[in-house]
Amino acid sequence: MTVDAPVIAHLDPPRRTLLGPGPSPVDDRVLRAMSAPLVGHLDPVFIRTMDEIQEMLRYVFETNNRLTIPVSGTGSAGMEATIANLIEPEEEVVVCIHGYFGERMSDMVSRLGGRPVRVECDWGAPIDLDKTREAWRKSNARILFGVHAETSTGVLQDLRPLREIADERDGLLLVDAVTSLGAHSVGADRNGVDACYSGTQKALSCPPGLSPVTFSERAVEKIRARRTPCSSWYLDVGLLLNYWGSDRVYHHTAPISMNYALHEALRVILEEGLEARADRHQRNHRALVAGVEAMGLAMQVAPESRLWTLNTVRAPENIDEAKVRKRLLEEFNIEVGGGLGVFKGKLWRIGLMGAGSTENNVLLLLAALEKALADEGFKVKDSGVSAAAALYSNEKS
Amino acid sequence: MTVDAPVIAHLDPPRRTLLGPGPSPVDDRVLRAMSAPLVGHLDPVFIRTMDEIQEMLRYVFETNNRLTIPVSGTGSAGMEATIANLIEPEEEVVVCIHGYFGERMSDMVSRLGGRPVRVECDWGAPIDLDKTREAWRKSNARILFGVHAETSTGVLQDLRPLREIADERDGLLLVDAVTSLGAHSVGADRNGVDACYSGTQKALSCPPGLSPVTFSERAVEKIRARRTPCSSWYLDVGLLLNYWGSDRVYHHTAPISMNYALHEALRVILEEGLEARADRHQRNHRALVAGVEAMGLAMQVAPESRLWTLNTVRAPENIDEAKVRKRLLEEFNIEVGGGLGVFKGKLWRIGLMGAGSTENNVLLLLAALEKALADEGFKVKDSGVSAAAALYSNEKS
Repeated sequence: MTVDAPVIAHLDPPRRTLLGPGPSPVDDRVLRAMSAPLVGHLDPVFIRTMDEIQEMLRYVFETNNRLTIPVSGTGSAGMEATIANLIEPEEEVVVCIHGYFGERMSDMVSRLGGRPVRVECDWGAPIDLDKTREAWRKSNARILFGVHAETSTGVLQDLRPLREIADERDGLLLVDAVTSLGAHSVGADRNGVDACYSGTQKALSCPPGLSPVTFSERAVEKIRARRTPCSSWYLDVGLLLNYWGSDRVYHHTAPISMNYALHEALRVILEEGLEARADRHQRNHRALVAGVEAMGLAMQVAPESRLWTLNTVRAPENIDEAKVRKRLLEEFNIEVGGGLGVFKGKLWRIGLMGAGSTENNVLLLLAALEKALADEGFKVKDSGVSAAAALYSNEKS
Repeated sequence: MTVDAPVIAHLDPPRRTLLGPGPSPVDDRVLRAMSAPLVGHLDPVFIRTMDEIQEMLRYVFETNNRLTIPVSGTGSAGMEATIANLIEPEEEVVVCIHGYFGERMSDMVSRLGGRPVRVECDWGAPIDLDKTREAWRKSNARILFGVHAETSTGVLQDLRPLREIADERDGLLLVDAVTSLGAHSVGADRNGVDACYSGTQKALSCPPGLSPVTFSERAVEKIRARRTPCSSWYLDVGLLLNYWGSDRVYHHTAPISMNYALHEALRVILEEGLEARADRHQRNHRALVAGVEAMGLAMQVAPESRLWTLNTVRAPENIDEAKVRKRLLEEFNIEVGGGLGVFKGKLWRIGLMGAGSTENNVLLLLAALEKALADEGFKVKDSGVSAAAALYSNEKS
């Protein structure tokens, strides 16, 4: 112990308006839930909490799957948990790639010793179903992967045609619902989804740190029939089930405070109801679109495929999108995201997720964006605020 | 959306005195830190927070290692992160097993496609160095694994002889410091530790959810020279370094609120200083031992190998240890742990970690334990409270 302790000041983060790709704004009651006293991870009180979280997660996933739990990591941990448990070495997986997260899944499959059959589709459009069907028919894969809500592009994918393709050969449908769960209906049972993961920090409006996952009985059967153990001990759902199931066998120490937060965030969703929550997300999305289009900006995604939670808005030519984001953050305390991959430097990703999807935030963002664009030399066509306000007025009348 | 939302009551956990194997009690200022407003994971404010956390973690690990970060999962995720990055398929690892966590490491090595060379030692005693040296010499391993603080047995392991064995062949020393970091000096640089992981929920007195890890330059070189990619995308330290390093490349969304908590928990440690903190843990441990021995109970571990943070106390013959724990929890709101593995049903694991290592807690526990034992039909020899109080008085005079 030879070194002096460094001197670090108390942390006092500013109150940002989080309208990026996540984390999303969190209700104060959810933040307060985390400061409740800690109990042990095998405490009867915590075990009841776990049961309630599972019950509420089943409601938001719209499933009866027994194996429905929050994985103790962020969304990417849930992504890795689903694929690491489902595939075995050398196994083929058809991976539809129409954005950053399809690429990530392809990478994960390779690392786990599997063989991704890559269906490369255009970024910013839905999955190419003909290509997918062809790849599925040519492969020996039992797993078809698609992203329900591509956070990198703002595209919502219809799950039914993917289910139909997988049904040609008793396939398991694996779905990324990180940016849809809690806003767009995932309908895990209705859509025949066999495994699905999400993150807490998007439309569930909970701080990042947990990843809700759900597995169908067919998926659990495949996992039970594994010839090799899951390469990850931490994410092995067989072991996790012993803890989350009735046995309560010690696995790892669950992140207690994060589970408190998720419990409260889910209660907020239950109080609002999934349908009302979906309507709210849709309405605010439409107001934002009306606003940005009135300003003369263009949406990246065609109207029928737009996410309500994550809006990709093209930056005008000759405007440095990063500078606009910097102005929004520094002058207005508003965070929006930039583009990823092929969209880097070309668009903004504007999140309206969970507690962040409000009329106030839409109007504030449009006002701030107009000012920031003007300061960068871009004059808007018409007032975005007026266009959005008009939409809200019409909806109410 | 066919089902009605379940009705779940607000969560109102009791204020337990957490004297088990973790989570440990957390200062209110750490709990409060989690309810600070969320910022984005690429926000300049959060990036400064990350820098400060790294600086403070280097202080508690006693290292200058650049690669010193909190992994976004609990202690077991850090365990998996160290080994998954360090080994390649078919590689041998000498794993010293003198408790539950050595077993877990052996399991992880196997799952990752490596070959554990198991050095099986007695539970409740330090690692058998002769056996370890022999195994090391006979194997081709480049990695030697040992547990600094066995949470399952209460044994503290001297790291220097392990370093000496590894030095016979330029070996990397991988160390589990989950239950020592922040109390017993880990001295990563002084002890020549090449990779080390811990958890936030033990002597760091922070809620569970993050796992601090550190890698020496030699360990980083081995990782850079990998022939195969790390099987875990989530835990790939090459990718993590791009985010925690100067590039700030998006990897996963960091658990913002958990990092706020860790920031504040580390500030608490810095204010106290590592040496004063070690002294406090030692003093309260000695008082507890004086108390339980006065009562006629026996410690499981020999005096020279006892952890200050985790005290294993043998349950008297004919006493159901689980019933005593239940009484402590229900009558006194005190959590202590039971035995794991070979010690199941045979001992209590009493944690005095971080904010939980106080004179108040020692005296309260001894008083409550005396009462619970009496209710189960065991009459103590002498007053544990008096013996502990005497020790405190002597120390102060």
